[in-house]
Amino acid sequence: MNNPSPELAHQMANAIRMLAVDAVEKAKSGHPGAPMGMADIAEVLWNRYLKHNPANPHWPDRDRFVLSNGHGSMLIYALLQLTGYDLPMAELKNFRQLHSKTPGHPEVGVTPGVETTTGPLGQGITNAVGMALAEKLLAQEFNRDGHHIVDHFTYAFLGDGCLMEGISHEACSLAGTLRLSKLVAFYDDNGISIDGQVEGWFTDDTPKRFEAYGWHVIPDVDGHKPEAVEAALIEARKQGQLATGKPTMICCKTVIGMGSPHKAGTHDVHGAALGAAEVQATREALGWTAEPFVIPPEVAMAWNAVDRGKQAEVEWRERFEAFRAQYPQDAAEFERRMSGGLLPDFADRLPAIFNAIANKPDAIATRKASQNALDALAPLLPELFGGSADLTGSNLTNFKGCVKAGRDAWGNHLSYGVREFGMAAIMNGITLHGGYIPYGGTFLTFSDYSRNAIRMAALMKRRVIHVFTHDSIGLGEDGPTHQSVEHVPSLRIIPGLDVWRPADGLETAVAWVCAIERCDGPSALCLSRQNLPRVTEHIAAAQIRQGGYILSEMEHPQVAIVATGSEIEIALAAQKALAAEGIRTRVVSMPCSNIFDRQPSDWQEAVLPINLPTVAVEAAHPDFWRKYVGRTGAVVGIASFGESAPAKDLYAYFGITAEKVVEAVKGQLA
Amino acid sequence: MNNPSPELAHQMANAIRMLAVDAVEKAKSGHPGAPMGMADIAEVLWNRYLKHNPANPHWPDRDRFVLSNGHGSMLIYALLQLTGYDLPMAELKNFRQLHSKTPGHPEVGVTPGVETTTGPLGQGITNAVGMALAEKLLAQEFNRDGHHIVDHFTYAFLGDGCLMEGISHEACSLAGTLRLSKLVAFYDDNGISIDGQVEGWFTDDTPKRFEAYGWHVIPDVDGHKPEAVEAALIEARKQGQLATGKPTMICCKTVIGMGSPHKAGTHDVHGAALGAAEVQATREALGWTAEPFVIPPEVAMAWNAVDRGKQAEVEWRERFEAFRAQYPQDAAEFERRMSGGLLPDFADRLPAIFNAIANKPDAIATRKASQNALDALAPLLPELFGGSADLTGSNLTNFKGCVKAGRDAWGNHLSYGVREFGMAAIMNGITLHGGYIPYGGTFLTFSDYSRNAIRMAALMKRRVIHVFTHDSIGLGEDGPTHQSVEHVPSLRIIPGLDVWRPADGLETAVAWVCAIERCDGPSALCLSRQNLPRVTEHIAAAQIRQGGYILSEMEHPQVAIVATGSEIEIALAAQKALAAEGIRTRVVSMPCSNIFDRQPSDWQEAVLPINLPTVAVEAAHPDFWRKYVGRTGAVVGIASFGESAPAKDLYAYFGITAEKVVEAVKGQLA
Repeated sequence: MNNPSPELAHQMANAIRMLAVDAVEKAKSGHPGAPMGMADIAEVLWNRYLKHNPANPHWPDRDRFVLSNGHGSMLIYALLQLTGYDLPMAELKNFRQLHSKTPGHPEVGVTPGVETTTGPLGQGITNAVGMALAEKLLAQEFNRDGHHIVDHFTYAFLGDGCLMEGISHEACSLAGTLRLSKLVAFYDDNGISIDGQVEGWFTDDTPKRFEAYGWHVIPDVDGHKPEAVEAALIEARKQGQLATGKPTMICCKTVIGMGSPHKAGTHDVHGAALGAAEVQATREALGWTAEPFVIPPEVAMAWNAVDRGKQAEVEWRERFEAFRAQYPQDAAEFERRMSGGLLPDFADRLPAIFNAIANKPDAIATRKASQNALDALAPLLPELFGGSADLTGSNLTNFKGCVKAGRDAWGNHLSYGVREFGMAAIMNGITLHGGYIPYGGTFLTFSDYSRNAIRMAALMKRRVIHVFTHDSIGLGEDGPTHQSVEHVPSLRIIPGLDVWRPADGLETAVAWVCAIERCDGPSALCLSRQNLPRVTEHIAAAQIRQGGYILSEMEHPQVAIVATGSEIEIALAAQKALAAEGIRTRVVSMPCSNIFDRQPSDWQEAVLPINLPTVAVEAAHPDFWRKYVGRTGAVVGIASFGESAPAKDLYAYFGITAEKVVEAVKGQLA
Repeated sequence: MNNPSPELAHQMANAIRMLAVDAVEKAKSGHPGAPMGMADIAEVLWNRYLKHNPANPHWPDRDRFVLSNGHGSMLIYALLQLTGYDLPMAELKNFRQLHSKTPGHPEVGVTPGVETTTGPLGQGITNAVGMALAEKLLAQEFNRDGHHIVDHFTYAFLGDGCLMEGISHEACSLAGTLRLSKLVAFYDDNGISIDGQVEGWFTDDTPKRFEAYGWHVIPDVDGHKPEAVEAALIEARKQGQLATGKPTMICCKTVIGMGSPHKAGTHDVHGAALGAAEVQATREALGWTAEPFVIPPEVAMAWNAVDRGKQAEVEWRERFEAFRAQYPQDAAEFERRMSGGLLPDFADRLPAIFNAIANKPDAIATRKASQNALDALAPLLPELFGGSADLTGSNLTNFKGCVKAGRDAWGNHLSYGVREFGMAAIMNGITLHGGYIPYGGTFLTFSDYSRNAIRMAALMKRRVIHVFTHDSIGLGEDGPTHQSVEHVPSLRIIPGLDVWRPADGLETAVAWVCAIERCDGPSALCLSRQNLPRVTEHIAAAQIRQGGYILSEMEHPQVAIVATGSEIEIALAAQKALAAEGIRTRVVSMPCSNIFDRQPSDWQEAVLPINLPTVAVEAAHPDFWRKYVGRTGAVVGIASFGESAPAKDLYAYFGITAEKVVEAVKGQLA
């Protein structure tokens, strides 16, 4: 431990405060209040306890730190700069400017040492729950007697905003149930949010709330007394060593904007520059004589963690080598898993798997096809970590031999409870930690609940796989509250998300493989409740991998019919009926338009020529298809909400039928 | 009160159980478990205390009842049938069939007596919070000494699923803060969710959690002992009479599927028909000898609430007439407000308001234009109830003279706290109750958080107005976590939602008026952070009301440029630059594509002729615009995430510029 004198500790905290003040002032935008209020807490955690190595932000057993109140981004930029990460002071001077390493909110992949992208409130603490879960699972899987190669804490800072957000309930409730004892959260209880003093809209007894979740709660800590913060942190860290330890919430009373003589304790300091006069007054009040962006040498030296950090990693590497000596295969597997690479023979094993699936003639729901694909792939993928938001038997996310994850023992399938948003953001946290490929299921319509976490996975380029079953009016009787109409097209336009809507067993298996092979972003698999016939018996997996391809061709087609998923069957029936009347069509299957759009233009033109009249059919909102059929093409879809009735009645009622496709094709020829 | 003998009470509850069992059996799908488990609670509430009139499901002062665990829809259908609503037994036999009045989940507007559409978990209890809030506000606004014309309870049933969902935290936390003492929730604590026994994923101490929210909690009630349930209910109702009363949570221990000899207490009874043998065994176990869908006369008579209900309404109407005698204007206003009609001179006052706004030449942000519109309209709209999810000063949802709503006194602007989803579903509840037109603000990107509640407003055809500011990369420095890219287009495809993206003061005012005049659905106003010039000085409000119109025409245009909001300025600059080169264009403003799409086809063709090459420009995902520009048109948009930087730098970096539009137009002519 590294305990500075009280005076030095205060100056170290003030270094954070003034970097935040000066950077926000220079950018003329940003949030100085939280960094100023949490500076003393940050000094205790980052300077005295955090296990990290500024020279290597990626070593596996570092502690994870999440700034859930991401608007306070200058707090973490200051900490990274001061402790010695590759974040030069010039970057802090360039706060919030194009292509700086100091964007308005912390972004993983942009700034070394930032573990997750935060800003959308409540999701940071939920990512932290995912990281702590990954740590616990990996420890259960890889640690051996005398070899604790996975043994780190996950720390999160969060404010009132995160605690008001519903997702904090989902995540923290589950963290309590799962006893994630190495998760330590610091609540910045400053009584202020953007609209003013929170007592008008937020009067929770937060300690009591977290006790109700099964957390260890340390209330009433003075967040400006380092010794009080340190005592709480020591107590929290003890939980991490207990067999029945709990996650810890340290409730710190703080003053937002601490140090600003006239604005501290008010919402004025939350999200705006202080202004030149108040900046000067703050300097004086803090006794900070250094120029902006200059750190006095003794303060800089005290903060510098490069040597300590190197030592921490070296110690771990020595332990890891001892582990390797005794368990060489486990060590290699651990390294593979943390690297995110697949088993060396993964690709070689795929043809046999695809063949076996393609050879099954039975009509099955694609949710069942998804489970079959999991059954086939799971033995090659010990890194799979599945789950469902309380719909396991409907989503069919469990696979042969999967092990239920729970409080006490390792498993690779978790019942997340009815917590869609929490599940999605926890999965993001798992991938950010590393070691597992998470996937999770719910009904497609409830992707609405988790939508912003799906977006965050895309923004962060994380390999998260969403299994969205019951993907249309085809779910039938549950009715319009559960029937997706706009969801497939609206997911397709989240940048960086690959949305699959496969038609049969082989397309589903290819979708799974592409989602797993994809290292730079999330995928969503939209799957049917109802049975669908096999349609790809003459198709190679390589074609499906293009995202869109010619499924059934007639010579000199007059019209193309493009469809996805459950409507491929309808497109093929229409083709047959039209053929009987001498009308020649091409049926294009488009299981993943995002991938199709990334193909070379000659592939796209070969599949859907610009001059070939085109009809689309999909049991979803039709507008999306205009990009392929143009203004003059036709779309057989559904632009209204569904109804409660058996699926076959609904397809007839809404006119998602071969007859309507036949009509539409003829309309193109008229 | 209407207290049956214990034996009769039991048979009355069994009537619910067997209707649920038989209807699910006949439909071969549905959820018998919850109705069977909550039947005894339902008997106590509905038979003994609920103030309702089966002959008039719409009288203003009825108690509101919400089945938040909406999958148990047969519970409410049974109750409505038994108490005498216009829901013939034939409808129960037709459970979950096309166009029956008994859809899979309860739908308001479909079934008389159903107060809200439920199924998406957590939203029902949140609607109930909105209803209780509306009741409290109306009581504060209209009740006078000796005249309590607004004085009813809101009851909600909810299960483990609702309590796991994050939105339950948002809503119940706020309900505690606001002391909604006439809200009574019954928690169906049966220990089972779809994945099985909840102890593996849900171990909250729920009573403690709700105490932390400031609720009055009654724990450990045996939900199968009517006298225990009744005692709890009496205690809860006392809270409603206290000046400092709290909302009440009655925690009822129940057995899911109570009455089924072999499936009670298991997840098998949650969401599937029991099967013929178990149906028979249940009949025998309950001593229920009647045929399916037949109710023994003494049970039917005991349930029938037609006379009692009529009497309840008559009593209220007498009180209301006494109120009218003393406060005739208030009575008339109350009736208007509950009817949802606007003030008689509303329409007449608009031209002057539009003129005044159109005459202001200043460049302003449309979020500011929105506040200006509110300032102008609010005096005509005492029914407005605004708010923001802790961004009041950014969303500018407050208006001149608005009154802060809070725990103790009436107000018409609420700081909802950082609770976007909760706010949206509470607004749905407010409109379902009646008396106010709610609107609420957040940043457009965080519409993701509330998305399913926006969808539910559309499905329920509710007049809810979403104020989404900071609507694009134009928000600048906060970066990609806060910058909308896909949101405007993805909202546009929610069926029934009108999405506005106005360009200046007049378009914004027209958007507000259209949203207020629209009685059958929600509207979303997407508004800029940055200042925009006035562009409609020669345009009439009537044109804007068409959703899309010709803003700036040149003779014999060669290309149309269609744009919205902040990109109108860019389109006009491109038009000017092209004109200098002799290229003739038409600029179309499309503030609301949903409304434009509902115009007669000749209007659409006049504005955007199918044979006129078209270029679209919008700082959003481009795919949406293919419906207007076709495959061969051009779209200047942004298909990737944004960046953190000043707005002007981002527009240049992402090429949302007049130069790019000029290029695109020339490309159309090449």
